[in-house]
Amino acid sequence: MKPVCLVVGAGAGIGGHVARRFAREGYHAVLCRRSDQAGLDALVAQIKESGGQASGFLLNAVEPDAIEDTVGRVEAEVGPIEVALYNLGAQIGDRSLANTSYKAFELGWRMGTLGLFRLASALFPRMEERGRGTLLVTSATSAVRGNAGQHSHASAMGGRRMLCQSLNAEFAAKGVHVAHVIIDGAVDAPDTLGKMLGPEAFAKLRETRGMEHDGLMLPEKIADSYYHLAQQHRSAWTHEMDLRAFSDLAWWNH
Amino acid sequence: MKPVCLVVGAGAGIGGHVARRFAREGYHAVLCRRSDQAGLDALVAQIKESGGQASGFLLNAVEPDAIEDTVGRVEAEVGPIEVALYNLGAQIGDRSLANTSYKAFELGWRMGTLGLFRLASALFPRMEERGRGTLLVTSATSAVRGNAGQHSHASAMGGRRMLCQSLNAEFAAKGVHVAHVIIDGAVDAPDTLGKMLGPEAFAKLRETRGMEHDGLMLPEKIADSYYHLAQQHRSAWTHEMDLRAFSDLAWWNH
Amino acid sequence: MKPVCLVVGAGAGIGGHVARRFAREGYHAVLCRRSDQAGLDALVAQIKESGGQASGFLLNAVEPDAIEDTVGRVEAEVGPIEVALYNLGAQIGDRSLANTSYKAFELGWRMGTLGLFRLASALFPRMEERGRGTLLVTSATSAVRGNAGQHSHASAMGGRRMLCQSLNAEFAAKGVHVAHVIIDGAVDAPDTLGKMLGPEAFAKLRETRGMEHDGLMLPEKIADSYYHLAQQHRSAWTHEMDLRAFSDLAWWNH
Amino acid sequence: MKPVCLVVGAGAGIGGHVARRFAREGYHAVLCRRSDQAGLDALVAQIKESGGQASGFLLNAVEPDAIEDTVGRVEAEVGPIEVALYNLGAQIGDRSLANTSYKAFELGWRMGTLGLFRLASALFPRMEERGRGTLLVTSATSAVRGNAGQHSHASAMGGRRMLCQSLNAEFAAKGVHVAHVIIDGAVDAPDTLGKMLGPEAFAKLRETRGMEHDGLMLPEKIADSYYHLAQQHRSAWTHEMDLRAFSDLAWWNH
Repeated sequence: MKPVCLVVGAGAGIGGHVARRFAREGYHAVLCRRSDQAGLDALVAQIKESGGQASGFLLNAVEPDAIEDTVGRVEAEVGPIEVALYNLGAQIGDRSLANTSYKAFELGWRMGTLGLFRLASALFPRMEERGRGTLLVTSATSAVRGNAGQHSHASAMGGRRMLCQSLNAEFAAKGVHVAHVIIDGAVDAPDTLGKMLGPEAFAKLRETRGMEHDGLMLPEKIADSYYHLAQQHRSAWTHEMDLRAFSDLAWWNH
Repeated sequence: MKPVCLVVGAGAGIGGHVARRFAREGYHAVLCRRSDQAGLDALVAQIKESGGQASGFLLNAVEPDAIEDTVGRVEAEVGPIEVALYNLGAQIGDRSLANTSYKAFELGWRMGTLGLFRLASALFPRMEERGRGTLLVTSATSAVRGNAGQHSHASAMGGRRMLCQSLNAEFAAKGVHVAHVIIDGAVDAPDTLGKMLGPEAFAKLRETRGMEHDGLMLPEKIADSYYHLAQQHRSAWTHEMDLRAFSDLAWWNH
Repeated sequence: MKPVCLVVGAGAGIGGHVARRFAREGYHAVLCRRSDQAGLDALVAQIKESGGQASGFLLNAVEPDAIEDTVGRVEAEVGPIEVALYNLGAQIGDRSLANTSYKAFELGWRMGTLGLFRLASALFPRMEERGRGTLLVTSATSAVRGNAGQHSHASAMGGRRMLCQSLNAEFAAKGVHVAHVIIDGAVDAPDTLGKMLGPEAFAKLRETRGMEHDGLMLPEKIADSYYHLAQQHRSAWTHEMDLRAFSDLAWWNH
Repeated sequence: MKPVCLVVGAGAGIGGHVARRFAREGYHAVLCRRSDQAGLDALVAQIKESGGQASGFLLNAVEPDAIEDTVGRVEAEVGPIEVALYNLGAQIGDRSLANTSYKAFELGWRMGTLGLFRLASALFPRMEERGRGTLLVTSATSAVRGNAGQHSHASAMGGRRMLCQSLNAEFAAKGVHVAHVIIDGAVDAPDTLGKMLGPEAFAKLRETRGMEHDGLMLPEKIADSYYHLAQQHRSAWTHEMDLRAFSDLAWWNH
């Protein structure tokens, strides 16, 4: 039986490419996304056509029991989850304080922080019992500095980062590896960045930065580092790494 | 009319001493706490007996509209809030992941992060209109590193810290000063540390560390730095400072 | 006998204003600068005319024994040094790697890091014996992030910051307080910024940002926070604080 | 012709294993160390016996021109350096301020900071011209926090870290990748840790932590991450990552 890699937040960006990469390396990839059954099926089919194993689940991470039930179902129906990726973002675009409703602020936390806590609560007792497991967490620049317009996102991601540290402090010695990855730049992802910018602006951005200059972060290249993190020997684990395009300035240089 | 200093979370520790200190310096101190009307009245009376002005409100910060209504009432009945202190903690003691319920995790966020967001949402439009104001935020070591047992607290405080940065980024140039204060040690506070430890252990800790060695942080001395922060000229504002007892190691040296 | 405040790097900016402020509060201010005896005498005279006590020493901090001898002389001739400020910068302007000579890089370290180490080596045994003392250290954004063109400055300031931490770790419990102050913005200082920009550009900058908008950091206001740090009770010491003008973005928001 | 990987500081720990790993992957490994020609020859021979290419140079990094000449010679005699590893430590053991001589403090800087600056100065113009290259930098916990007894080491490593950031800020967009790796734990390295502890204590440490529990960081596993960093696609480069054994606490949790 193949080891299982569960991806929470699997679209056309990082999540989908991580699923594909782990499938290629011999994992059974379980892809979860909130909506778009057709898109999900296509991703799963694509992996299978390349000779990999994959399954897909629709999963609305803010619904009660959704994450917990999916973990249970995957463990029962597919197999023990060896690697999980929490890849849900909480970006709602730049909004002033006056334009950030309590509801938007809370949703940011539910996606950004609570969802990760729920995934760990459901998954870590199982990993602890097996004495092994990896939780990869996609994070953002907002986890390390709060910019104007980012009240919801920054507080959610700041919470996410500290949660990764507290989880690591409790579980690393039990064989469970938590890795917090700071994506410090724009990712070439049609589902998220593409939708946020609109098709024209995204096409233009891709043209000027993405193709010749690699100025957009290519999700299949990001997936290389995720795969590496999951393969690190336990005598040399990374808790945090940052990633950005070579042509971009690091957040502390902006 | 005296300038108003609003303290959200005014007990026998930092909050109460900050209220007292600002009252001594000519502010009208408004003390808010969740319960214990008698204790609140005593604090207010104490300030008045010393020749200061003070008012007290019971305020349950996790109830809908409680923070917002209090801000409105204070501005209407007492006067424009020049300085506010958000002094609510979110510490629930060391708890493993298995012993941290979703409810406890959410409560941590409501006290630690959302309450501050609500206070800023209610208060900053007024301060912005007046072109001035200060928001002091008591924070904790957990805002900068997540320890085992601190899942709820660390994620709440990590969110608090990033929120302070995003608020500062939007409002500093409008004359509103946000200062994030990292209390990196045990405070000699009967209401919080005293209750957590129990009377005997607290008395013993006080004896061994608090009196001769100043090993517990004295809240009236912490209040000195809070007062200083609120008096900084706008050409030289502090966004973040840490505080700890001289005899204690900084969190990064533990 | 008045307590002594030693200022290493006392010009028309932060250093001179800190000296003035401490003299006003009852310290004997000892001002040290590399050159310009006339300017030094004028600063000393100015303090005396205001009713304060002050002395001046020329001190080239990169010369062997210069710092050590000055500490010895001040302690012997003026009195025990209660507060010292290390206020020497190491900024050499933006220079590419190709334009940063080994000599320039080393000079940055001698001013930025070694000088502080030498001051602490000469001073801390005395402070430790007395069980009290404060070392204030002016630092810069470069201590927390390295920008292009800042190879010499950033590595010197990064070293300065870590040295402050290691000094604090050894000496705080012995009653010696080390405070690292991150000056995160342009200071309205004719001697340094003025010389770097030239008189015309400096006058223009002052006009557009300094006067009406307080957009330049006013050194006499910075001195308020330095004074506060030196007065903190030992139960609540600050190891690090940042300072910037309200109208400026924090370094992490640029 | 094989791409060249230059290792400055190649003993039986991280440096030697990185050389071996890159040789195995098709690089010509150039190993440099300060002394022990026999040990160096043995490492080179070992790599060759395994079918790899390797050369060895004795290199005293604190001698004038030693680093610069070696870079020139390697480029002329072996080939263009594609990857360089700066692996010189600056740890001199725990020493109080009183026991840290100026000479020791300066040597720390020469090994810890200046040597890296010299390597970059010699190497980066060549890499910039070729539009590609990687500089891996081994660093330590002391780069991010200063402990008691670490005055020399912490200030040297703090300078190293900021220098990596300023180098990255100037050179990343030119295709030169700088990666700063925080080794946050004890490495199973006979040459350094072994010598520091003495043979008996090292054997005991290995036994209790190293073998069954992987509690010592295994240098060949660390080398996996170094190799990964050097292979990252330029659309997703890491500037900083940390590494520690699973059973160890992160520095911020100690």
